Amino acid sequence: MSEYNPSQISRVKRVHRRAAYDFKTVHGILDAAHFCHVGYVIDDQPYVTPTLHWRDGNRLYWHGSSASRMLRQVKTGVPVCVTASLFDGYVLARSAFHHSANYRAVMAFGKAKLIEDPAKAEAALKLMMDNLWPGRWEELRPVRAQEIKATTVVTMEIEEASAKIRTGGPVDDEDDYALPIWAGVEPARQIIDPLVADPRLTDGIPIPDYLE
Amino acid sequence: MSEYNPSQISRVKRVHRRAAYDFKTVHGILDAAHFCHVGYVIDDQPYVTPTLHWRDGNRLYWHGSSASRMLRQVKTGVPVCVTASLFDGYVLARSAFHHSANYRAVMAFGKAKLIEDPAKAEAALKLMMDNLWPGRWEELRPVRAQEIKATTVVTMEIEEASAKIRTGGPVDDEDDYALPIWAGVEPARQIIDPLVADPRLTDGIPIPDYLE
Repeated sequence: MSEYNPSQISRVKRVHRRAAYDFKTVHGILDAAHFCHVGYVIDDQPYVTPTLHWRDGNRLYWHGSSASRMLRQVKTGVPVCVTASLFDGYVLARSAFHHSANYRAVMAFGKAKLIEDPAKAEAALKLMMDNLWPGRWEELRPVRAQEIKATTVVTMEIEEASAKIRTGGPVDDEDDYALPIWAGVEPARQIIDPLVADPRLTDGIPIPDYLE
Repeated sequence: MSEYNPSQISRVKRVHRRAAYDFKTVHGILDAAHFCHVGYVIDDQPYVTPTLHWRDGNRLYWHGSSASRMLRQVKTGVPVCVTASLFDGYVLARSAFHHSANYRAVMAFGKAKLIEDPAKAEAALKLMMDNLWPGRWEELRPVRAQEIKATTVVTMEIEEASAKIRTGGPVDDEDDYALPIWAGVEPARQIIDPLVADPRLTDGIPIPDYLE
């Protein structure tokens, strides 16, 4: 299997040509996003919480869920929607109607469960760090049992997912191209700035390779 | 009134010191975010859709909602959670447990409604453009009635909202500061890159002041 099979839940309804369901596209966007938004329902009320997420194959992880109280009660898992989005810019057209945004987004659906086994929770946290900064986990002061216990790690097998992508410039009505109106793209991206060392950093500690 | 009054729905439960409910903080984050994530529920299933949003006082707007079919049925409005988040960087501590992220996020709650009056929808779309590029609306080819009709504009009065902010470097256990481990912040931010003109742009059209 190399792509998700969308039910009515994840099938993209508007602008089909921008949709994708293949693993490569969906997983690529999930991995490129620094964080995601997790949507869940309590008493008919939707909640959307931003959080760091990470992935292992078809499985997503995140931690620090404010739904943890609910998750503790529902051992079988609760339905969630995990959305990861990258904003790539504004698209300025010659008519208001054709203005748009460039973006890459994934909506992934499944049942969220708390990881209750401390060994599995620790393995999941190590995986997060290995993804971000390979080798750092081994350099750190070892984790303590009570720290694992105090950390909420949530996981979800992706049951179905869709990606939606828009790229490129404006697409105007043919008659509008001759108008004397500036049109094009105002591109946006997320960047990482130079590192800021902790003021209490011990002298002589070099910046690790994985941060260069 | 200068701040939101949180019920159980919006009161921040974890790390209270990072929470804020005042209009200035909440609205400032909503305005700083290029886009938001809208959470809603259909048949007990949560959905989280990324979209551009804009604000007028205590009222939010967005468009192109995939929940529009549902919204057409529920004239009184459906409960949504609109979350706007800015990722400001990774926080690297000396123990895995104290790793964190810097961020600014708002969760805003209310009832979403379709704007069905074309004049009100047009006014809302003009407001979006006035916020982003003051003066552009007047330069564009005028909107047509069928374009307004084809555009889904959704609005929500903010009933309650909370902000959550983390800034600064790692906070380690006192005993860990002496460890020979690099600690600090890997800052992140969203930037706008130089404009990319449409290849079909008519010669001699200058870049407008609002894009400089």
